[in-house]
Amino acid sequence: MAIETTKKNNKILPDILAVIKDVELFSGLGDEDMKSFADKASFYSYPKGKVLFIRDEPADYFYLIISGWVKLFRETLDGDEAVIDVLTDGHIFGETSIFEGGLYPYGAQVIEDAEILMIPTSVLEEKIKNNITLSMNMLGAMSRYRKQQDNEIEHRTLQNAPQRIGCFLLRLCKADDGKSVTLHLPYDKMLIASRLGMKPETFSRSLATLAKNTGINVKGSSVQIDDIERLTGYSCNACSNSYPCHDL
Amino acid sequence: MAIETTKKNNKILPDILAVIKDVELFSGLGDEDMKSFADKASFYSYPKGKVLFIRDEPADYFYLIISGWVKLFRETLDGDEAVIDVLTDGHIFGETSIFEGGLYPYGAQVIEDAEILMIPTSVLEEKIKNNITLSMNMLGAMSRYRKQQDNEIEHRTLQNAPQRIGCFLLRLCKADDGKSVTLHLPYDKMLIASRLGMKPETFSRSLATLAKNTGINVKGSSVQIDDIERLTGYSCNACSNSYPCHDL
Repeated sequence: MAIETTKKNNKILPDILAVIKDVELFSGLGDEDMKSFADKASFYSYPKGKVLFIRDEPADYFYLIISGWVKLFRETLDGDEAVIDVLTDGHIFGETSIFEGGLYPYGAQVIEDAEILMIPTSVLEEKIKNNITLSMNMLGAMSRYRKQQDNEIEHRTLQNAPQRIGCFLLRLCKADDGKSVTLHLPYDKMLIASRLGMKPETFSRSLATLAKNTGINVKGSSVQIDDIERLTGYSCNACSNSYPCHDL
Repeated sequence: MAIETTKKNNKILPDILAVIKDVELFSGLGDEDMKSFADKASFYSYPKGKVLFIRDEPADYFYLIISGWVKLFRETLDGDEAVIDVLTDGHIFGETSIFEGGLYPYGAQVIEDAEILMIPTSVLEEKIKNNITLSMNMLGAMSRYRKQQDNEIEHRTLQNAPQRIGCFLLRLCKADDGKSVTLHLPYDKMLIASRLGMKPETFSRSLATLAKNTGINVKGSSVQIDDIERLTGYSCNACSNSYPCHDL
């Protein structure tokens, strides 16, 4: 997300209004409405590890990521953790709490140093009831998220672990990457395993299987793919979508 | 869903307006709006097996189930099928196509004889852009669905197969069922397996494990649970929600 910055008290701050104008949820809103979100927004830089909120906490704010990575998670009675999603710049979270009795339906933690806008949910709640553009934008966003989750459930049913890792890598490719590409894994492997619903040992074993079957080359957090088509043949045939798909 | 009926050409037809008034999506709408949905709705009885539509077909109608069961599914290039959801009376499907470029995002097939209302998506599309009550209702419904899908993804990550079957059974229990209950499986076991993302052989083996560990007794499509608490202890400790939860 390319953003304008201003300087205040010797700190470089983003131009919040410019950030908000770029967000799909707010697209088509009038200047006045954009400004009422921007005026109430606060900018924060958080280090890796910072817990932003936990599940069932009163949801006073929703969040917009400017840079960095945040994971959404839930914990079971047994103390296990399920990673629901891993989000980066341009993504919003915590906003559906306005339909969840004002409580966060999951916890959120910064997993790579992040710059974040916090906006009071009260502003969203008041505006959305009176602004059909905003409520239609939110319906569109939720519909896209619903489709992503359908994909996720489908993948956990029909793709085996190596195919799911291949799918994750393909989503990091750009449509114009051509035949070969070198990728940098966006966050650490243990978290990628959690994001894909795998135990660390399953992930390591499956990554080795994937490399053997598709000729990709993994060194640390760098992944060399010499033949994208070979990888799509391996992963995408067990999916109802066709490559490229960049919805995660 | 208890519905009024009328007789026309010797066929018993439901009172469509009464059906529509009972649906959450339409709650709080004025009589005029309810009537414009009811006037355009058509009633159909479909036998088990009937395919209502396939994925990516133009979505001219959305559907409301009055009775029976319908599965939503997607197919992969390899020809495998992922069951996305299994729905019964009171449920609506196909409605999010208005945010999906007018195409169905999945296929739908009747799996137990069903009575269904078909309503043109064009009516929904026109109304939702002009009626904040309707768009807020739809946002509430999509938010609930999103939470269900989060649960589903969590379960596929953290619950083992016998726990997932236990969870499915508990969702069929009513909050006032007390200590013990006899359930009737709502549709056939192969489909329950697909709904839970399991191969038939995994399902059979896991059902036996579940019975052994929780003392439940399965005979054909009848399930006798003598000690609900024992079952919740087995399944719900590996979940971030607590029993009872009836969101599927």
